[in-house]
This record gives sequence, structure tokens and C-alpha cells, in this order.
Amino acid sequence: MISFCQFGAGRIGAIHAGNIARHPGARLRHVVDVDSAAATRLAAQYGAEPSTRAAALADPAVDAVLIASSTDTHAELIEAAARAGKAVFCEKPIDLDTKRVESCLAVVQQTGTVLMVGFNRRFDPNFAKLHAQLRAGRIGKIEMLAITSRDPGPPPLAYIKVSGGMFRDMMIHDLDMARWLLGEEPVEVFAAASCLVDPAIGAAGDVDSAVVTLKTASGMLCQIANSRRASYGYDQRIEAHGSKGSVAAENQRAVSIEIASAKGYTRPPLFDFFMTRYTQAYANEIAAFIDAIDGKAKASPTGQDGLTALALADAAVKSVKEGRAVKVSEVLA
Amino acid sequence: MISFCQFGAGRIGAIHAGNIARHPGARLRHVVDVDSAAATRLAAQYGAEPSTRAAALADPAVDAVLIASSTDTHAELIEAAARAGKAVFCEKPIDLDTKRVESCLAVVQQTGTVLMVGFNRRFDPNFAKLHAQLRAGRIGKIEMLAITSRDPGPPPLAYIKVSGGMFRDMMIHDLDMARWLLGEEPVEVFAAASCLVDPAIGAAGDVDSAVVTLKTASGMLCQIANSRRASYGYDQRIEAHGSKGSVAAENQRAVSIEIASAKGYTRPPLFDFFMTRYTQAYANEIAAFIDAIDGKAKASPTGQDGLTALALADAAVKSVKEGRAVKVSEVLA
Amino acid sequence: MISFCQFGAGRIGAIHAGNIARHPGARLRHVVDVDSAAATRLAAQYGAEPSTRAAALADPAVDAVLIASSTDTHAELIEAAARAGKAVFCEKPIDLDTKRVESCLAVVQQTGTVLMVGFNRRFDPNFAKLHAQLRAGRIGKIEMLAITSRDPGPPPLAYIKVSGGMFRDMMIHDLDMARWLLGEEPVEVFAAASCLVDPAIGAAGDVDSAVVTLKTASGMLCQIANSRRASYGYDQRIEAHGSKGSVAAENQRAVSIEIASAKGYTRPPLFDFFMTRYTQAYANEIAAFIDAIDGKAKASPTGQDGLTALALADAAVKSVKEGRAVKVSEVLA
Amino acid sequence: MISFCQFGAGRIGAIHAGNIARHPGARLRHVVDVDSAAATRLAAQYGAEPSTRAAALADPAVDAVLIASSTDTHAELIEAAARAGKAVFCEKPIDLDTKRVESCLAVVQQTGTVLMVGFNRRFDPNFAKLHAQLRAGRIGKIEMLAITSRDPGPPPLAYIKVSGGMFRDMMIHDLDMARWLLGEEPVEVFAAASCLVDPAIGAAGDVDSAVVTLKTASGMLCQIANSRRASYGYDQRIEAHGSKGSVAAENQRAVSIEIASAKGYTRPPLFDFFMTRYTQAYANEIAAFIDAIDGKAKASPTGQDGLTALALADAAVKSVKEGRAVKVSEVLA
Repeated sequence: MISFCQFGAGRIGAIHAGNIARHPGARLRHVVDVDSAAATRLAAQYGAEPSTRAAALADPAVDAVLIASSTDTHAELIEAAARAGKAVFCEKPIDLDTKRVESCLAVVQQTGTVLMVGFNRRFDPNFAKLHAQLRAGRIGKIEMLAITSRDPGPPPLAYIKVSGGMFRDMMIHDLDMARWLLGEEPVEVFAAASCLVDPAIGAAGDVDSAVVTLKTASGMLCQIANSRRASYGYDQRIEAHGSKGSVAAENQRAVSIEIASAKGYTRPPLFDFFMTRYTQAYANEIAAFIDAIDGKAKASPTGQDGLTALALADAAVKSVKEGRAVKVSEVLA
Repeated sequence: MISFCQFGAGRIGAIHAGNIARHPGARLRHVVDVDSAAATRLAAQYGAEPSTRAAALADPAVDAVLIASSTDTHAELIEAAARAGKAVFCEKPIDLDTKRVESCLAVVQQTGTVLMVGFNRRFDPNFAKLHAQLRAGRIGKIEMLAITSRDPGPPPLAYIKVSGGMFRDMMIHDLDMARWLLGEEPVEVFAAASCLVDPAIGAAGDVDSAVVTLKTASGMLCQIANSRRASYGYDQRIEAHGSKGSVAAENQRAVSIEIASAKGYTRPPLFDFFMTRYTQAYANEIAAFIDAIDGKAKASPTGQDGLTALALADAAVKSVKEGRAVKVSEVLA
Repeated sequence: MISFCQFGAGRIGAIHAGNIARHPGARLRHVVDVDSAAATRLAAQYGAEPSTRAAALADPAVDAVLIASSTDTHAELIEAAARAGKAVFCEKPIDLDTKRVESCLAVVQQTGTVLMVGFNRRFDPNFAKLHAQLRAGRIGKIEMLAITSRDPGPPPLAYIKVSGGMFRDMMIHDLDMARWLLGEEPVEVFAAASCLVDPAIGAAGDVDSAVVTLKTASGMLCQIANSRRASYGYDQRIEAHGSKGSVAAENQRAVSIEIASAKGYTRPPLFDFFMTRYTQAYANEIAAFIDAIDGKAKASPTGQDGLTALALADAAVKSVKEGRAVKVSEVLA
Repeated sequence: MISFCQFGAGRIGAIHAGNIARHPGARLRHVVDVDSAAATRLAAQYGAEPSTRAAALADPAVDAVLIASSTDTHAELIEAAARAGKAVFCEKPIDLDTKRVESCLAVVQQTGTVLMVGFNRRFDPNFAKLHAQLRAGRIGKIEMLAITSRDPGPPPLAYIKVSGGMFRDMMIHDLDMARWLLGEEPVEVFAAASCLVDPAIGAAGDVDSAVVTLKTASGMLCQIANSRRASYGYDQRIEAHGSKGSVAAENQRAVSIEIASAKGYTRPPLFDFFMTRYTQAYANEIAAFIDAIDGKAKASPTGQDGLTALALADAAVKSVKEGRAVKVSEVLA
């Protein structure tokens, strides 16, 4: 039985806490949040205790730490947990700065900590099955990959301002998926971006519509499309094309009825956002983390995966600025 | 917090026990089974105790009884639980004989027992949404209904022999769905059936392929197709046609990737059977039962629903034998 | 080069005339219609002459006669054309009375005439491919067949009154498809029907919503659903289920774009009716008829196919009246 | 009645000749080809005469010239036909060199010639309907466009060597579609390309897998994916995303049956290539050209459309070479 301390009692924290509580091999012991009322509420729901950081990390009964607090606390919490001898699951990103990520990962390596980064999409049953088909060679050699990823609507401006920008906040998920699915590192990144959804996003120095092209050393090509707006729900699709065929993971919806009328045939909109779309993925990633602690599998995605995805996002930002393809080696010195 | 005693620790019992345990307003207290080892195992998994029938029904802490034991025990257990003042959830059917069902329901009525019958499909999110569309008038007045329901493969012969036959064992689910969706009672039943899957089923006096036509007083027509065999998984579809349009609930699969190759475009087979296909339905029906105990909603489907569906199945059996349309009034004297 | 005389310059006549004219091995020479203006117009469009029946049948240059005039003229025209030594393509039905059909077919047999009956759906590329899959054993032994066939709206009452009723006018197409696809003769017919679309249809002695169950000697089961109303277009689907799998031919639409919005995902309605839905089928059946004249293939569907489908329709009518399964042998004495 | 002289009796010429012959307002009068046997065969099929260029252009009865000969003859034939006072339909491209295209278009302008360029995809019913939805504002303001276009297999190496390369030969179609659908000119092009299908293509100096990003002045983003290989047929899809929703035109297949078995649900591969996929588009573009000659509509796509698409292809080639986004103004001096 793995005992958890969780940092962060917000929206994503609630999901993780529930999955820990429902896992037969885990229990939630402490919840820490700067909003102590939120910590108390979430802890109560799952038979845990609201705690302070110090108390939680000092508790020898705690095996694992789940970090779902704000991004600026991640790196330091990872280091503290690592030094306290706990296994760590950290929501992406470790930090918005690659240098800081590197110094954090150095501590993780020194302490021999089990660290897993929360790229939840790898654990979606559809994408996982698609990944398995690619690895099994079902479409031959992969030649092209297309990832479409659109949020139903933009986050609050306040969030956008501290998010690190669309590439580091949102597209980083797709960049990780691209690396994982291609099975070969992108070496070159080209990005183009616009502010089409809300001028206020542009005024805050960010974009809301972006496309990226990745190229690997062997010549595989990947296209990613991101938007902060999709009237029809949370648009999450992947398609890989190879020498022997293609494989696609289509969008998901809560119910799949279809109504036919004089106006045509209509199916409902998609899942509304990540909490409903990736319900199973969130449960699966916690299960995978627990397996890693138990030594049944290696922790994956790793801290290095988090760092590389961030570097790709940095390269995309640089590409938009300079209007040219940027080599990944330029941003990962 | 509703405390449950569950009768039956088999395949379907395991599903119910899990759903009770996961429900925040319920707990599993006793498990009773003729196979005491099975009762012990299932009880242990969810923090309950293996018990005897007498002890469980005598326990004043038990609020509700879930009956998932063999069919021949249902009616008597319902009566015993009713007399012990417990709310009752019973897997379908209450009994294979309508007379016996009627005498059982008389006890339920006398004791004022909350009784719910396990027609799980009403709680499938897709079918529930389809039902809601019909009640909201989205396709106008319902004119025709088509239900397709095929099992992946036949059950063991030993089961078939005590099952009451394909109409009472399998099609009863579709007959209940027809009543629920049409919103008007069928008054006439025509059935045709064959033994095409396995001659041993025919030798046992049963059929394995059957179609039914129902007609209501206002003239609505319903077609049901059943088979004990479907190579591609558990085939569960419903389509309603009305004056303003149609609405269909399509088949479900665990993952929805599609692979394209020189041979064509291929999606995976369907869910393999009811335990995976109706996972959510089983959880929802337990939640609905708990709501009924808590007085938040009426218990539904009722014992009367169980009785009427059985009568429709009886009419279908009679129709096959006599080669004619049978009025429901003929079998529900 | 096969020269045609065509009887009938109406809606369906226009389709056939166009297909004859476009066929590289055929030409349209005469058009005969009681409405001489219509005959003149259609003839002019394809370089043919408006003619009288006598002149057309006496023309030794005419190889083939296409009959697309009103149903009551079919049998006599077939006989006259047969006696004049012409090959004959006749729109279904040969006659609404099986006795009359039989006497007509006797003439056809005496004269050794090539006769083909216009069950156009056999020539739809989708249904033809489905048929080919069945014959190739792709789903193993056929066990069940489901045919859905709904017109977008009812024909004029005046037509309904002379149509022979829904079973002989509309469902006869589906009965032919059932025979053709099953590959084994139905021996028993059960039908149920209602008047739900327009009470005036009921007042005229007809029905507008009907379902039929067919059973073959080996036990195959077929369900057919017909309606005179479908808000979403011309609903034409077939699904066969067998020991190794299923095969389905889905509905067709003119364009297949899909629009996603906050209201959901919408595809356009279906083809509006047979002239657009079966464009290719009409061209293919004329080509098949010309091949039959040229001795490249046997004429099919035959006059006997027309007779048997009519007998199945008669059995359905009798079944509705008597509320029982009717043996085909009862109506084909 | 418009009389045509057609240059080119090859694969695409056969399609055009058939569509001219089948059009009620047109006839094919001359066929000219360096392979005089091919010209004779094609002419005979449609009641035309094999001719020489001089004779055909001198024939005052010829109203229109259709150019489907090899690319290197296009510009000169356009000029000759223009000077002979004929309307001209020319297969894309006018020439592989923008300077040559410009000088040719100058002649067209001087002579006031009706000129239409054969971007057939604009006339596909699905893409035309998608275009109509965009112009009608059904998805609000267009923000992103995704075009997927994969050939079933690479053309012969001999063709590749004179084709102008993948961008000018193949992607030019998609570049035209992008301009037409976006309704706003791309100002910037970024391209990445690889040789993944056949090293011989790379040895010939070309690529076989390519992706392009276009950006318009207002910030719309377009992604195009091209491959010379697709095992599952001719992959032709378009999807537009806007402020109010999305609209997609899906792939097309000859028949749309679906077979279900233990291996899953399988639909047939796509149309095998442009001749079957764009049958209707080819007929529609000839009809549009005839309408333009008759003054019922403006000729479109124009020579200028041909020039601009070529410039975008040139920009893509330059972008691959220089690894940067290329402004269209750089290549259209």
C-alpha cells in the first residue's frame, strides 16, 4: 500500500486525489495547499489529513508525493521530495525554464528518485492503442504524423500571463505526444502562430492559434495544429501515416447517439474538456506511477521527457520570432 | 450510508459488489453464497463479511438487499427480504413463471417494499440519452423501433437448460427496452425463431436466433433481432423512427482507433460482452437504487416491469409455437 | 447496336431513355406514350421518334422494348412485344395479380423471349457488392437479414389507390432483395402494418408503415421495415448477419461533408429519392439487359422473380388480415 | 453547340473527351496528338476527327480548345489558340516557369481570350459544398485549414524528372485549394520535405513526402500534407476550422459496405486515383468552361490562379532549400 502526500487541491488535484483513493494499492494521507480550506475539503473527501509541507515530507509513512500545485512551485517541491526520499509524480511542466529543469533533474538523479511527469495523454486508451500499433509495425515505417489539439475555449487572461505562452503551456502536450509516437527525436522545429481568438491574448504577448512542423533526423515529418477555441468541444485527434498504411485515433464524446431529421444527421459535441475527455488517462497514469514505485515498470514519462518537450516548445517560440526552422540543438545547449 | 447484503458472489455479483463499494453513499456489509469460498473472497475484496442468509436478513444494520444469486432463488429471497423490511434490488428475472412473479409482487406490495429489477440497459448512457430524446419529442411521434441484440457466443448448455429459453433469458432485456422506449404497451407479439448456431441448443429444446414484432394499441411497430452468436463482439443497437426523424444509439467499443491499409479501413471489434459494454450502466443502476432508497426518486424498473417483460417473452414463445400473433392479454390473464 | 422502343415517357421513363442513349451499344429509336407531347419531348432529347405502339412493334429495326408505362399496361405490352419477337425490359410489377402474371409468363416462355424485370436495387453498386460478399462466404452461413426501406414521403393518394397497396407497390422491392440476398426461398411470411403517416392512406384502404418477417426452409430469418415517411431522405439500408460476421450497406448522400458546431456534428440528409439514390443502379440494369440480349449473360431478375416477389407481397397482405404467419405455398397455388 | 478541338489523347485526355461528348451543349470535333494512332482511336470513340494542330486551329467551326498534352506544350498552345480566337481550357500547369506563364498570360489578355485552368478539385461536389459553407459563414471567420493529399503511389521516375518536382506537380493542387478556400492570399510559405518512399526519387532531385504551412495577411494558418504513397488509396481530405465551428470533407470510396468479423469492422479502401475519385469534378469543370464560353459565368480558375499557385509552389521549394519562411512577394517579383 503506497501512501501519498498531494500538493495542490485545485481542479486537477481533485482528479488525482480521487484516482489515488480509488486505486486498490494506494491511499491518500496528506493534502497540502496554500488555500487551507481547499486542502481540508479535499482531504476530508478521501479520508486524508490537511497538512503542511514540512509535516508531510517529514512523515516516514509517506511513500510518494504528487505535485499538482502551481507551476512555479514544481521544481522546488520535486527537489524537496527527492531529498526526503519520496517518489514523485509531478504535473507538467517541471518548470518553464530549461535551465531550472536541468538543475532540478540533477537533484533527482543524485537522489535516485523515482520521478514521473504528468503527460496524461500517453495514458489515454485510444492513443495508447495507436502507439502500440505503431510500435508493432502495423503501418510499416512511420513517415508523417498529424496531431490536432484544440481547447474548447481560452483560459482566463490571468492564467495566460503566467502560463509561459501557448507553446509551453498547451502545445507541450502535443510535442510530447509527437516524440513518443514517432519514436525518434525531432531535430528541427518550424512554427507559425496568430492571435485570432481574442486580441487580449495578443496584447498579453501570447498567441491563440499555432501550427508546428517537426522533422526528425531520418526525415519523418510531423504537423501539429493548436487552437484556444473549438465551438464543438475538446478536439483531440492523432493520425500517423506510414509505408504500409495509416492509423488514426478519433475524437471522443460522452454519448454517441445520432439524430436524423430534415436538417441532416447530428451527433453530439465532443467531451467538453480534459477532465471528462481524459478521465481514464488520469486513472491509468496514477496506476502506472504506482507500478513504477512497486518496481513493476520504469517510471515514464521521465523528467528528461519533460525537459525535451519544453525544449521543443522553446524552439517553436524561437521559430515564430525568427521566421525560420530552428534546430533543437540550438535551444538545448 | 446504505448498508447492503448481497446474495450471489458470481460474475454479475462481482460487478454489483464493486459498484456498491465505490458508491460514496453505500457500503457492502454481507455477502451470501452457496459457494462459501466465493462469498469469502468477494466479501474480503470490499471489506464485507461472508454471512448466512438468516444472519444477514436479521442484521438490523442492513438497509438493502441485492439479489444476484441463481434465478430459482429470486422470488423467495425477495419475499424474505421484504418481510425483513429491507429494500430490494433483484437481478432479472424475478421468476420464470408469471404466476410466481405475481405472488411475489403481492408480498412486496403488502410490505411496502422498495423493489427494483435489474434491467441494466435502461441505465446505459447512450440508451438513456436516446430515451430522453424520445420523451422530449425530438423525432416527433414514435412510429417504429428496431432493437438489435446479439451475444458474442452462446452460454453453456447447462445454463441454457435452466434459463427459461432464449426469449425469457435474453430477449426479455429487449422487450423491456421496447416498452420503456415506446412509452406505450405492446398489445400483440409475433415471433419467429430458429436454431442456427448450435444444434445442441435445439436438442435442448431452445432456439438461438429469434426475431420479434411488437405492436402497440396506437399502431407503433417494433422489431427485435436476437442471436446467440456475433463474431465481432456484443452487438447492442437501438434505432427509433418517428414522424419528424430518427434517433439511433450505435455500438460501443473499448478503443476507437482506425487502421487503413491496402485491405481497407478497420476499426476494432465491439466490447466483448455485458460486463465491459455495460460497465457504466451497472454503476448507474446501483446509484439509482440508492437514490430510490433515499427517497430521491421512485424505484424503476419496478417489479411490475419485470412481470410485463416476462409476459411479453411468454407471448413470444406461444407465438413461435402457434405461428400467429399473440395478444399480450392472452398470457396475462 | 441494340435499338430500343420505349413505352412510357414519365419520370422513370426519362431515366431509362437517358441510360439507353448513353450506352455505347444501344440507341433509342421510338418513344410511345398516351401523352403524345411527352413522347415527342423525350424522343427529341435523345434523337428518337415519337411513335404509336403498332408502328414501333412492327419496326423490324427494333430489337428491344422497354416498358415504363403504367402498371395496368405491362402484361399486355410484354405479350405483344414477345409476339413481335422483341427482347423486353419491364418495370416492376408485371401485374398486380399473380394469375395475370402467370399467363403473361406463359407467353414469354412460348415465344422464347428475353425478359428482364426492373428490380433496380440489385444493380446498386453497394448492394451488389454486399451480395457478392455473401455469395463469397465472407460472413459464413447467412443467419439473419435486416432491410430498412423508407420513402421520404408518401405518393399522391390517387397513385396509392391504384398501386396495389404498400406491400405490392413498395415492399415488393425489399422482398426481391431478401430473396436475392438470402439465396434461399422464404417459405413463411408474417406481416404487421399500421397507418401512422396519413389517415387518408388508411381511408383509402392502405397502410403506410409495415414490417415483415420472412423465414426460409433452413431457418434463415429476415426482417423488413417500410415507411412512407422519412424526414431525413430516402432511407435504404441492408444488413446481413452470418456465422462468421456481418456485412452492412449504409445509406448514401450526395455530398459527405460534416459541420461541427456547438450543436454537434452534422452531415447532410440522404439522397432525396430513388432517381438520385439509384442513378448508377438504373444505368447498370440497362447495361445488364443489353448484355443479356447480346447473349453475354442471362436476363436477371427474370419474370419468375417478379412473380415470386409479388406472391410474397400477397402473403404479407394475407398475414396482416389474418394475424398469422402465411406459407408462401398458400398464395402460389 | 460548342465545338472542341482537343490536344492530347492520353489518360487525362480520354476523360475530357468523354465529358465533352456527353455534354448536351458541346461536341468534340478534332483530336490532335503526337501519337496519331492514339488521336485516331480517341476521335473515333466520340465521332471526332484526328487532326493536325494547324488544321484544327484554322477550322472556323472550332469554338474551343482543350489542352491536355504534355506540360511543355501548354503555353505555346494557349498562345496559338488565343491568337486563333478560340476559348481555351488548359490542364495545369500553364508552364513550370512563372516568367513563361506571365508572358503567356499577356497574350491571353491582349487577345481577350476566355481561359480556364484545370484545377479539377474545385469542382468536386464535396469540396464545392465545403467551399459554399465557408463563404456562407457557417463556421464564422476561418482560422485554420488542413489539407491532406496523398497519391496511392509515385508516378514513373521518367515523369518525376520532367514534372517540375513534387511541389509544382502535385502540391500545386492543394495550394490552389488553399487559396480558393481561405478566400485570402497566403503571404508566407514554409515547407519541409523528405524522401521516404523511394530513394530513386531523391536521387532524381525530388522529394516524395512534404508538408507546407501557409499564412495569410490576417493570420489564417493552413497546413498541407502530401505524400506520393498511400496503401489505402487516394487520400483527399480537407478540414477548415473557424470561430464558430469546423467543416470537413471526408475521403470517398466506390462502395461503402462494412464487414464485421472477429478482426473488426472493415470498410473498403478509397478510390484508387484521380480518374475515379474526381469523375464528377472533371465533368463539372467542362460544364463550367462551356458556361463561361456561353457567357453564363466567368471562367474560373483563371490563368492568374494558375500563376499564383505556381508561385506558392516556387516559394515552397525555396523554403525547403533555405530552411525559412519565404514571402510570396519574394518569388513573384
